[in-house]
Amino acid sequence: MNHAVLLISCPDQKGITASVTDFVFRRGGNIVHADQHTDADAGIFFMRMEWEMAGFAVPREKITEEFCAVSQAFNMTWSLYFLDEKPKVAIFVSRQLHCLHDLLFRYKSGQLPCSIDLIVSNHRDAEPLALQAGIEFCYMPVTPQTKQEQEAHQHALLKAKGIEVLVLARYHQILTPEFVRQYENRIINIHHSFLPAFVGGNPYAQAYRKGVKIIGATSHYVIEELDGGPIIEQDTVRIDHRHSIQDLVEAGQDLERMVLYRALRWHLERKVLSYGNKTVVFD
Amino acid sequence: MNHAVLLISCPDQKGITASVTDFVFRRGGNIVHADQHTDADAGIFFMRMEWEMAGFAVPREKITEEFCAVSQAFNMTWSLYFLDEKPKVAIFVSRQLHCLHDLLFRYKSGQLPCSIDLIVSNHRDAEPLALQAGIEFCYMPVTPQTKQEQEAHQHALLKAKGIEVLVLARYHQILTPEFVRQYENRIINIHHSFLPAFVGGNPYAQAYRKGVKIIGATSHYVIEELDGGPIIEQDTVRIDHRHSIQDLVEAGQDLERMVLYRALRWHLERKVLSYGNKTVVFD
Amino acid sequence: MNHAVLLISCPDQKGITASVTDFVFRRGGNIVHADQHTDADAGIFFMRMEWEMAGFAVPREKITEEFCAVSQAFNMTWSLYFLDEKPKVAIFVSRQLHCLHDLLFRYKSGQLPCSIDLIVSNHRDAEPLALQAGIEFCYMPVTPQTKQEQEAHQHALLKAKGIEVLVLARYHQILTPEFVRQYENRIINIHHSFLPAFVGGNPYAQAYRKGVKIIGATSHYVIEELDGGPIIEQDTVRIDHRHSIQDLVEAGQDLERMVLYRALRWHLERKVLSYGNKTVVFD
Amino acid sequence: MNHAVLLISCPDQKGITASVTDFVFRRGGNIVHADQHTDADAGIFFMRMEWEMAGFAVPREKITEEFCAVSQAFNMTWSLYFLDEKPKVAIFVSRQLHCLHDLLFRYKSGQLPCSIDLIVSNHRDAEPLALQAGIEFCYMPVTPQTKQEQEAHQHALLKAKGIEVLVLARYHQILTPEFVRQYENRIINIHHSFLPAFVGGNPYAQAYRKGVKIIGATSHYVIEELDGGPIIEQDTVRIDHRHSIQDLVEAGQDLERMVLYRALRWHLERKVLSYGNKTVVFD
Repeated sequence: MNHAVLLISCPDQKGITASVTDFVFRRGGNIVHADQHTDADAGIFFMRMEWEMAGFAVPREKITEEFCAVSQAFNMTWSLYFLDEKPKVAIFVSRQLHCLHDLLFRYKSGQLPCSIDLIVSNHRDAEPLALQAGIEFCYMPVTPQTKQEQEAHQHALLKAKGIEVLVLARYHQILTPEFVRQYENRIINIHHSFLPAFVGGNPYAQAYRKGVKIIGATSHYVIEELDGGPIIEQDTVRIDHRHSIQDLVEAGQDLERMVLYRALRWHLERKVLSYGNKTVVFD
Repeated sequence: MNHAVLLISCPDQKGITASVTDFVFRRGGNIVHADQHTDADAGIFFMRMEWEMAGFAVPREKITEEFCAVSQAFNMTWSLYFLDEKPKVAIFVSRQLHCLHDLLFRYKSGQLPCSIDLIVSNHRDAEPLALQAGIEFCYMPVTPQTKQEQEAHQHALLKAKGIEVLVLARYHQILTPEFVRQYENRIINIHHSFLPAFVGGNPYAQAYRKGVKIIGATSHYVIEELDGGPIIEQDTVRIDHRHSIQDLVEAGQDLERMVLYRALRWHLERKVLSYGNKTVVFD
Repeated sequence: MNHAVLLISCPDQKGITASVTDFVFRRGGNIVHADQHTDADAGIFFMRMEWEMAGFAVPREKITEEFCAVSQAFNMTWSLYFLDEKPKVAIFVSRQLHCLHDLLFRYKSGQLPCSIDLIVSNHRDAEPLALQAGIEFCYMPVTPQTKQEQEAHQHALLKAKGIEVLVLARYHQILTPEFVRQYENRIINIHHSFLPAFVGGNPYAQAYRKGVKIIGATSHYVIEELDGGPIIEQDTVRIDHRHSIQDLVEAGQDLERMVLYRALRWHLERKVLSYGNKTVVFD
Repeated sequence: MNHAVLLISCPDQKGITASVTDFVFRRGGNIVHADQHTDADAGIFFMRMEWEMAGFAVPREKITEEFCAVSQAFNMTWSLYFLDEKPKVAIFVSRQLHCLHDLLFRYKSGQLPCSIDLIVSNHRDAEPLALQAGIEFCYMPVTPQTKQEQEAHQHALLKAKGIEVLVLARYHQILTPEFVRQYENRIINIHHSFLPAFVGGNPYAQAYRKGVKIIGATSHYVIEELDGGPIIEQDTVRIDHRHSIQDLVEAGQDLERMVLYRALRWHLERKVLSYGNKTVVFD
């Protein structure tokens, strides 16, 4: 898909849509998707515009320069992507492999527009899966004493491999604020509860004790505050009094797989805009 | 809401979005929603554009004339609406009143941007509800012998009152093709099954006998083919072997109310475009 | 429905099911529903048994006496109900009437096996609905100063009318612990969030600010802790970034109506057992 | 889990529950689940009773004999299972591997109480997955000319290996009536539509053309009538006008995996009773 995507946010005012679509049209681009949203309370305008590069008069490397006139006029924060340039992804995982397993199958089936180049784990359980999939596996055990050092190694490795997106597919380590800050809106976590309910450890046990009739899963960007980042996607499933904690775990795993997959896919398709502590998802 | 809405469909080609947004922008309109879709198989482009009339340089009655240049260039089929001009609606109902009851409560609560001016029924059951709501009630019993004559009366009445939209809120009469043709894409029906399963009478009994584990409801525009028109909205609910037919009826009524309400609301908000036997819903 | 229902909880051990079913069978009762559950962690056994009184050898008023031998042998906590003895219900409501409106329509349609004998409100908004339904309306405004006094009046009134179940259908007053204690497991509240997320006031605004992708509603028994009682039923609905707070309110109202209705109906059908801070719902 | 399960159906009459529970209790069995249902229209009573064999006075091989007195008194059709005797399963698959992949992961995770001993396919695509899982793979290409012969081979193979349950995990061959008859209520198929809508080939394309707003998947026992057998489980997912047929296929695959898994698991847990063209699922 030789398509370009512009993700834009700026103070709301007249003429943004017209100016942006006009910019593309005058250069011969065919707009295939255009979606916009205004947060009236915050006074912010959001836009996602996707057009075909075939027939577009400006080569990729010149678009930024040409778009400057438009972006400056509206004081835009913006990003430009090309959908045939697939982002490099690293998956972090601990011992529970259902999300990793699901992502790898979808990846092999062509459902994830990215290149999964690395699997990092503090355990060895995921190694056979990585091997089968032909993806580099990096075993990096972490203790409180070695965490800072290991994160430095991880960061160096991610940088060396040009990794853009980190997926925490049930990675049971809390990243340090220093690490998190280097990947703003680029670390996607799956939390096994319907946030903001049941933050922290053992959410299924918390849900069981509370006696809820529905459980959930939440995928969000990671920020310094634990389980507090902008939510990308959530889903829920009905349970009842017959469900043991283990039943909740199993039912929840199916949610986790779906929710993490959808969040990652939308991120890779450049459909997610983060602002404040919220997201706009142009699905 | 002093907003204008353009609903457009035309053969897909470059420049449509840019031309339409430019048309609005150059006349001082602030676009608050713009959504588009391309049916790649059919080669048809669809668009919904909503903008604020406050500050727009062209008065309502002149917009059509001015837009002609754009619409002709792209061979558009298009409609122009103003959201503060609320369409007049008639509700047709027989003896089951749950949908009518629900619509009237929502109407009184301000959730339906229309003016419900008439309730028509082949039975007297709905009369007290109409009375309470202060809406004209027209009792028009129908037999096979009188159907054609009654439809003529109905049509005259609808015309006299300037009714734009007909809602069949469990109206158990099949309209004649002649009648239907006069209200293309303006009669909204609720069918109490997940169409295309269980067309025709007693769909809950059909579902019960088939042993399905989920039942549904479908709201669609009425065409000559029974239960065959373009689907606007559907929803489903889980059942199990314990449900009697009466349980299905009750569970289904909650679906019917929701599905019909959503379909009607989207229609009134000018979010629905019908083409072939399908709809685009810009929700 | 001339049916009897036994709701039982007791320490788990062998022979409970056999003893209870045998008790009914030997007296000529036809068991139409029998459901059981064991909370393995807590070591508690729960049972709901429903049988036809037609042909049962023991008259209603003697069953308790005869069942004593069984109940004592297993150290049971138990209740006996007859489904043709419909409990008297009072609905408490403030200014938002969607739940009341929905319950009254279902009541008139025969979906609620109870007798709604009283509507209490701290505002006059609900009075016309009560009048239409032919139900006594009691206007009882509440201020911090008069709360205790009004609750005393309410309690006297409820007692005088023989009210068994209180439904808080969006009643925006926090009941005092003294009042709550007199109606243990008999006050059913609807809270407009997916508890335990968003306890307290303005949960839709809280949800909006948090940026959740799903909202919920929760019906629970009222205990002294605010929004903390045993959950009977919950449901959720998907939202997105386009939803304003008012949109959340409207979407949530549809949830609230369904969730409160289901919780009340199950309670009235004697399908709910409360223990600790949880419920068993034999639906 | 050293548990016994009785699945019973018989003409409805008094005393069945009491007699069956009494049978277990008198022999020292602890009943852990007891569920029943009466189809009032058909006059049939269904029951599932599960008890602990630890402490049960009768050895496995004698239970049938002892239960005869009860079963004959009520003219029961019944089956006795022991949950630690895991049924042998064969999975039939063609080229689409998502269901197989999902089942194998769940199987390895301990979520499927069975022994998957064979994977049969008319293509070689599934061979690597079978190899990884350490399960025998049998490549049996089928043409109209060889179908009967191949089915004979398949039947011989299944018999030789003692296979009890056949799972058609997107097996794109229609089995002959002769073959089907030998495995009544033991062949579980996944159909990629919400049956009875879209029977037969290419249901996603059918759904796309019809313009439905929701798609589904259905798992059912196979009978001679194509896609017509008793439904065990269904589920649905919302789509909209933006979904291409390929999007429907992908969304549907997630449904198919879940629905087939649940149907198979419930069957293996002996929770499904089939009668006429319907099922009772004691979940």
